[in-house]
Amino acid sequence: MSTAGQVIRCKAAVAWESGKPLSIEEVEVAPPQKDEVRIKILFTSLCHTDVYFWDAKGQNPLFPRILGHEAGGIVESVGEGVTGLKPGDHVLPIFTGECKECPHCLSEESNMCDLLRINTDRGEMINDGKSRFSINGKPIYHFLGTSTFSEYTVVHVGQVAKINPEAPLDKVCVLSCGMSTGFGATVNVAKPKKGQSVAIFGLGAVGLAAAEGARVSGASRIIGVDLNPSRFELAKNFGVTEFVNPKDHNKPVQEVIAEMTGGGVDRSVECTGSIQAMISAFECVHDGWGVAVLVGVPNKDDAFKTHPVNLLNERTLKGTFFGNYKPRTDIPAVVERYMNKELELDKFITHSVPFSEINKAFEYMLAGEGLRCVIRMDA
Amino acid sequence: MSTAGQVIRCKAAVAWESGKPLSIEEVEVAPPQKDEVRIKILFTSLCHTDVYFWDAKGQNPLFPRILGHEAGGIVESVGEGVTGLKPGDHVLPIFTGECKECPHCLSEESNMCDLLRINTDRGEMINDGKSRFSINGKPIYHFLGTSTFSEYTVVHVGQVAKINPEAPLDKVCVLSCGMSTGFGATVNVAKPKKGQSVAIFGLGAVGLAAAEGARVSGASRIIGVDLNPSRFELAKNFGVTEFVNPKDHNKPVQEVIAEMTGGGVDRSVECTGSIQAMISAFECVHDGWGVAVLVGVPNKDDAFKTHPVNLLNERTLKGTFFGNYKPRTDIPAVVERYMNKELELDKFITHSVPFSEINKAFEYMLAGEGLRCVIRMDA
Ligand SMILES: NC(=O)c1ccc[n+]([C@@H]2O[C@H](COP(=O)([O-])OP(=O)(O)OC[C@H]3O[C@@H](n4cnc5c(N)ncnc54)[C@H](O)[C@@H]3O)[C@@H](O)[C@H]2O)c1
Ligand SMILES: NC(=O)c1ccc[n+]([C@@H]2O[C@H](COP(=O)([O-])OP(=O)(O)OC[C@H]3O[C@@H](n4cnc5c(N)ncnc54)[C@H](O)[C@@H]3O)[C@@H](O)[C@H]2O)c1
Ligand SMILES: [Zn+2]
Ligand SMILES: [Zn+2]
Ligand SMILES: [Zn+2]
Ligand SMILES: [Zn+2]
Repeated sequence: MSTAGQVIRCKAAVAWESGKPLSIEEVEVAPPQKDEVRIKILFTSLCHTDVYFWDAKGQNPLFPRILGHEAGGIVESVGEGVTGLKPGDHVLPIFTGECKECPHCLSEESNMCDLLRINTDRGEMINDGKSRFSINGKPIYHFLGTSTFSEYTVVHVGQVAKINPEAPLDKVCVLSCGMSTGFGATVNVAKPKKGQSVAIFGLGAVGLAAAEGARVSGASRIIGVDLNPSRFELAKNFGVTEFVNPKDHNKPVQEVIAEMTGGGVDRSVECTGSIQAMISAFECVHDGWGVAVLVGVPNKDDAFKTHPVNLLNERTLKGTFFGNYKPRTDIPAVVERYMNKELELDKFITHSVPFSEINKAFEYMLAGEGLRCVIRMDA
Repeated sequence: MSTAGQVIRCKAAVAWESGKPLSIEEVEVAPPQKDEVRIKILFTSLCHTDVYFWDAKGQNPLFPRILGHEAGGIVESVGEGVTGLKPGDHVLPIFTGECKECPHCLSEESNMCDLLRINTDRGEMINDGKSRFSINGKPIYHFLGTSTFSEYTVVHVGQVAKINPEAPLDKVCVLSCGMSTGFGATVNVAKPKKGQSVAIFGLGAVGLAAAEGARVSGASRIIGVDLNPSRFELAKNFGVTEFVNPKDHNKPVQEVIAEMTGGGVDRSVECTGSIQAMISAFECVHDGWGVAVLVGVPNKDDAFKTHPVNLLNERTLKGTFFGNYKPRTDIPAVVERYMNKELELDKFITHSVPFSEINKAFEYMLAGEGLRCVIRMDA
């Protein structure tokens, strides 16, 4: 019996207030409206951004809210005007969208859609400014337009990537955010040539995905930089060939790297969010041709500061958002790279829990244990 | 009768001390040694860099010295080991070289040769650490390895571009420095696409050459930015379509440009040397795809400072040196672009004087009059 057009009652993990364990509740999920898709989520994983908005320190708190934005699922029904997606399609919801009509979507280079660019403050659907989630008639806020910590969710069609139905959703769900961000930062933006050297600042999930991009690109040396030496053992599985802990040296890490490489690395990718790491990542690339790419999200008051001669000596500095991937146009091909065994994802998934134990995923992340914890919705 | 292998006695304009008019003297020019070329200079033009090292404020003064680095001439004789150049070849001496063997020369992207990169402090030839110029046996220092304010000069073969003998040397001499720097910054580094908008900061000779690059690239709008309104009239001949004087606005010029262009220009090229203009040039490009290119030479203590989110929003920041041209490999083709009437040079040459009046060229530049003054050596 079809559920299309009906309200669906299902389980969702609701964040009632900042920093308190999520609680699994029965919620009502309204049918998708114009340009919306309702998705049955099968697997979702936890990313730092979920924890950040759950913790809600220094932000306008928006509760109760259903968090979650890395996930894989199957289309249950589509709203008016949706073409190109039908019930049964396998999809990844993505926290940033692609309307295919604005100047950014029409540009070959940008993925920062004017209509559907990430908006962490919005708790409702853009169509009518209302939520599709409720409990006893009381609305529950959305998160990033995805809210994947729910058995069913409603997402704008511009935030849904249709992927190969043979792809295992329990693996490719991690491509919704962190892995694509790091991998794309290297392959789409830093673009190391075969045989070049790459420095990766920050060996969390995003940085290791950037290292995976360097490995796939045929980098000759992948230098991992992190303040936390426990990251180094793990990083060996991600093609990182050398390690530098800035704390082990009494000179700036960019000088250490310049000495290791005869003047600097060919490419660097910063995945820390630390302004000092951003500056070092820029200054450690070789003059003449070095390219540095910033990925980490800085603090509000940070200033990037360097001597302009570092630029005039023909270095390039770029930043990227979601690895420069357009979510609908490009992510299906990233899934194919996994299917072709070119890109490895399984090694990023260090934990797995049933939906009923979703708070354990938060505990692993807060303890800095592992990389990604996949949450099984049907368990 | 051949002069090869002989000392040549000829006229040169010698700077005896900082800030004092040059004086035309009879000098002795030794024959070229290994990997060197002796060139009969026919035309030379004056660039700010000559004036800067003549003025020698805040530097280690190096006098007596023969200045000059924008020029065209004919090979008189070549030293041991020189291949690819012979007497009679038409050439441009260039202030930065290309050894064709170091990592920079072997890289497709860099022109910052390890052996022959610009060195403003050196006053001798690198072969033996000695000068080829003397007066009554007393050495006179070289400048940038070119010293073109002399009827004959000796230059390292790596700093000599062999060009089409039909090219008028009184015009293409300006490609030795400023015009190639600005033009290359746009066409090689900023690379605007047809129909894109370009902002040029600084409408001196270098900035107008950058504007010429934007015109040749088919830019739809070329926005000139300068603090000196007298530059605006001149700039109209260089394809500049709109003007902004930062002094006319009570908000940062990057905001003015963002409003004029619906979010920012597609490309910007900074040709001022002012750190504030460098920051504005970066912040005025559109998020998602904007590229800013720095050309101006900053002060020693300047810091480039911006919020890292400006980078994360997918802007690119680059610097360039000599327009990213490799002097021997690339400059002959720039001369051909002039010969094909694609690139206009004549409009840059606003003054011309005989060699005997070379100090007038300094006066024009110090007064901010015109763009380039060509000095005719045979007059
Ligand atoms: N731009 C995007 O689209 C996007 C998407 C997802 C995540 N991110 C950002 O990417 C960054 C990394 O994410 P993650 O999930 O991998 O985080 P993470 O916390 O797991 O890893 C960050 C690592 O950086 C290290 N680090 C911190 N400061 C450092 C310094 N000064 N030098 C060297 N190492 C340092 C930490 O020890 C840690 O191992 C975060 O800033 C996150 O907000 C950006
Ligand atoms: N990178 C290289 O290879 C290379 C080669 C040659 C020259 N240069 C540099 O390029 C720069 C330009 O050279 P030029 O010969 O055209 O100089 P110029 O002095 O003729 O022109 C500079 C212009 O910039 C304007 N200006 C100064 N500050 C400004 C500001 N804050 N905002 C807007 N406009 C401002 C001035 O009014 C002037 O018109 C210089 O810094 C020079 O050293 C670099
Ligand atoms: Zn869009
Ligand atoms: Zn995320
Ligand atoms: Zn070289
Ligand atoms: Zn010059």
